[in-house]
Amino acid sequence: MTPPVALVTRLDETAEIAWQQRLAAAMPGETLLRFSAMSPAQRDVADIAIVANPDPADLARLPRLRLVHSLWAGVERLMAELPPDAPPVVRLVDPELSRTMAEAVLAWTYYLQRDMPAYARQQREKQWRQRPYRPASGYHVGVLGLGELGAAACRALKQAGFPVAGWSRSAKALDGVHCHHGEVGLTTLLAGCDAVICLLPLTPQTRGLLNADRLARMKTGAALVNFARGPVVVADDLLAALDGGHLSHAVLDVFDTEPLPPQSPLWEHPAITVLPHVSAPTSPDSAAAVVAANIAVYRRSGLLPPVVDRDRGY
Amino acid sequence: MTPPVALVTRLDETAEIAWQQRLAAAMPGETLLRFSAMSPAQRDVADIAIVANPDPADLARLPRLRLVHSLWAGVERLMAELPPDAPPVVRLVDPELSRTMAEAVLAWTYYLQRDMPAYARQQREKQWRQRPYRPASGYHVGVLGLGELGAAACRALKQAGFPVAGWSRSAKALDGVHCHHGEVGLTTLLAGCDAVICLLPLTPQTRGLLNADRLARMKTGAALVNFARGPVVVADDLLAALDGGHLSHAVLDVFDTEPLPPQSPLWEHPAITVLPHVSAPTSPDSAAAVVAANIAVYRRSGLLPPVVDRDRGY
Repeated sequence: MTPPVALVTRLDETAEIAWQQRLAAAMPGETLLRFSAMSPAQRDVADIAIVANPDPADLARLPRLRLVHSLWAGVERLMAELPPDAPPVVRLVDPELSRTMAEAVLAWTYYLQRDMPAYARQQREKQWRQRPYRPASGYHVGVLGLGELGAAACRALKQAGFPVAGWSRSAKALDGVHCHHGEVGLTTLLAGCDAVICLLPLTPQTRGLLNADRLARMKTGAALVNFARGPVVVADDLLAALDGGHLSHAVLDVFDTEPLPPQSPLWEHPAITVLPHVSAPTSPDSAAAVVAANIAVYRRSGLLPPVVDRDRGY
Repeated sequence: MTPPVALVTRLDETAEIAWQQRLAAAMPGETLLRFSAMSPAQRDVADIAIVANPDPADLARLPRLRLVHSLWAGVERLMAELPPDAPPVVRLVDPELSRTMAEAVLAWTYYLQRDMPAYARQQREKQWRQRPYRPASGYHVGVLGLGELGAAACRALKQAGFPVAGWSRSAKALDGVHCHHGEVGLTTLLAGCDAVICLLPLTPQTRGLLNADRLARMKTGAALVNFARGPVVVADDLLAALDGGHLSHAVLDVFDTEPLPPQSPLWEHPAITVLPHVSAPTSPDSAAAVVAANIAVYRRSGLLPPVVDRDRGY
């Protein structure tokens, strides 16, 4: 008999049960059990865990685990908490997530290019003033991170007529995108873009990447969008760059602490748009289908989709 | 010798001279003169006028006029003021204008679909709350007006994955767009769309078209965007539909009186985004090139591009 699959999360019970139902519907051949509802005997034999921010102590109580499949694309917390000998981790790579993120990147790029924050301010002041129009063809957008999400974002921006530059840790090539890599490449990209969109995974290398020094290399008047993870940007350095007038605006969807605490100065800053982590919400149906398909392949052939590289962290 | 071309506007002098310089550069074979700087002898022979909201009395002082070319796409004021025996009027049909308008339609559709007004409100209240995500594939957008601008807007929306419906006075067909026409078609479109974008020309038929009755036919919670002309929407009826909660939001770029007077209740309405007529600014270089090309064809062959139909008003 096929061993059970354990669902291990730190979600509240309602959310966990909702995931269980969707996942169970997507993989009718499997026995999917919530970790908290599993007997010791079931825990002893479970070989696959589907996880969402699991408590590592719970995973340690599944001795036969061969595969950990995350429901999220971002796995920095999971990777930091798992012991070195943990089983391979697969993170969510969902085409629907790439589509949603590319849409968010285009939507908030328009928000900046079309000066929506400034027009909102003018409306509050009852000021009728036409600001200079910046055609998309002259508005340079830089995308940091060229994985699935970054590549999809570049395609959407290019199709909309924006000149697009991309940056990644190691050299990549994307059709119609000026691709940069390494520290020198990052400096080049930052200096040339009117808007910089951060889609980098959070790793020891990217933590604090956008600090005072690198923000100072951005074009005067440029804008920053962070749709990745809060700690990639040093919040105090960003505030200083906005207050000093070097940068014009920031759209922040992710923060060091979420929900963003009420006492954070980011909430009230006139040059910051705060979003509650909504750029690319996971689509439960689509995520469940992706996870189910990966597990079906694993059961049939023992093959895994690309697993997270512990050294790179993604 | 070729007769001179008169530039007749009610712009301020600086703006008029800027246009004169761009237009003159675009048509080196023509003698382009500002009306106010023309001698009686020059006025007697001028056969073409390039106009921007001209005083009709000025045009009446050009007895040999064969062609009036507007620098704007919207000519409702010009058509209302010209006598019935005025020469044919050509309005600006500029591919760059279509591109810019399509971009604006997509940008502010994302603004609505991605709930940006609600997230701005939540930020002011320091409220961290994820609102339901509405995928583009389930967000129905209706475009009123299927001329050059409307067709370009439909294409951009379709490419971005929105289901698109269109409406026009007479029957039209556009690839991948549910096209409606006539009063029954308007009712169908209004009832089915989450966002309705108005791109109609202002004519006696469209003045007041979106009144209490037609706004009531819109879907509950839907949003309205007016990028056309203020009087197509009855402002008081729109306010009532927003206040009553039937409609969720309106993005208004055009008004009965522009600049929007400080005492207008639209400025401070929480469910209205006021823009100072910036959706699709005329690109002077591109407009000058289009006007120059039309005049060159006319000089060479006597042929005119499609002229404004006085009965239709566009």
